[in-house]
Amino acid sequence: MAKKQVGVVLSGCGVYDGAEIHEATLVLYFLDRAGVQAVCLAPDVSQHHVVNHLTGQPSDEVRQVLVESARIARGAVRDLATVQADQLDAVILPGGFGAAKNLSNLALGVAPVLVNPALVGLLQAMHAAGKPIGATCIAPAVLAAALPGRDLLLTIGNDPGDAETAKGIVATGNRHQESTADTIVVDAAHKVVTTAAYMCAAGIAEMGVGIEKLVQQIVAWS
Amino acid sequence: MAKKQVGVVLSGCGVYDGAEIHEATLVLYFLDRAGVQAVCLAPDVSQHHVVNHLTGQPSDEVRQVLVESARIARGAVRDLATVQADQLDAVILPGGFGAAKNLSNLALGVAPVLVNPALVGLLQAMHAAGKPIGATCIAPAVLAAALPGRDLLLTIGNDPGDAETAKGIVATGNRHQESTADTIVVDAAHKVVTTAAYMCAAGIAEMGVGIEKLVQQIVAWS
Repeated sequence: MAKKQVGVVLSGCGVYDGAEIHEATLVLYFLDRAGVQAVCLAPDVSQHHVVNHLTGQPSDEVRQVLVESARIARGAVRDLATVQADQLDAVILPGGFGAAKNLSNLALGVAPVLVNPALVGLLQAMHAAGKPIGATCIAPAVLAAALPGRDLLLTIGNDPGDAETAKGIVATGNRHQESTADTIVVDAAHKVVTTAAYMCAAGIAEMGVGIEKLVQQIVAWS
Repeated sequence: MAKKQVGVVLSGCGVYDGAEIHEATLVLYFLDRAGVQAVCLAPDVSQHHVVNHLTGQPSDEVRQVLVESARIARGAVRDLATVQADQLDAVILPGGFGAAKNLSNLALGVAPVLVNPALVGLLQAMHAAGKPIGATCIAPAVLAAALPGRDLLLTIGNDPGDAETAKGIVATGNRHQESTADTIVVDAAHKVVTTAAYMCAAGIAEMGVGIEKLVQQIVAWS
């Protein structure tokens, strides 16, 4: 029997300007442990900016999202714009600021949030086909913007500092439920599962508990 | 009781020119699960070169090992040269070409293999103090070069294409034992444990089995 194919949407390589490395890696790890084929995807666009992760300050470098995402994917990453929903059984969006800077303009704090059109197309087609969607960390807010008015139940955790982002999810016509990083929020009616990950996790092990549950739920639905 | 402190020596961020992201992340994950504090370290030097991980070709960019390692460490990485053996209970070297290009000149294929002096100092002091050392993928060959004539039992897997590298380990006055990626090679007399990881693993889950065992052995000794 052919392996299930689960898209993993990357947004660069590094928490401050790309995909969160630990979240993305643990998603790939738990998918492989479940016997599922991960299909890494990323948009072929320039990064919003490059952040020196040692100092936390932006640098004047220019990097490409697809090229940097290939670091997490060990080279095997496809241009998001070339992938159709009928090629995937499910899709997962790991977090990191790349989701808010390179997949969308969420980090700019303006409404409405704009999302990469290829990602909007893929997510809307997946959702319309009743296929499962997962998102971690800040990515549920991107998912909300890409699927407005769907009444999806989503989480970005429980940090008071993220209250405006949670309100933004509600403003898209979806719902927000507070959670801790070692849990998942399951919207069974819509086959959507989210976990807060580093939005509120104290460390990689706590975050990994939520990621493992999220992947298990995606696999169970696929 | 204070948490055990285990150094994790990074060499950049990405399999072809830095630390292998999956190996480094899973080392951090299993250490945190075991209640151990990971202390990420990297040398403050320029990368040997930068490889476009999408095409596999070198680019003309310049990147710093410490700065790129901070992507894996989410900012929390220390300059290897500032860390003393008495501050750590054990040390682990993940693999990736960065170990062979940025921590040493192993990738150049010349003898003898030269190793970053701060890393040599740390590894020799740790070993002299009877503290555990772990290494994954190609990093055992760097360990062999940094600790010549110690009769350490090490593995870099069983790929016939890596036979010259295995011979190089023996040439340093250490030993090589073939292995598969889901196992570890334990040198109990010297408190050294190694696993082949992506030298011969088919995927991240298989590789993760060996990494998990390696971390458990390091923690048991610490």
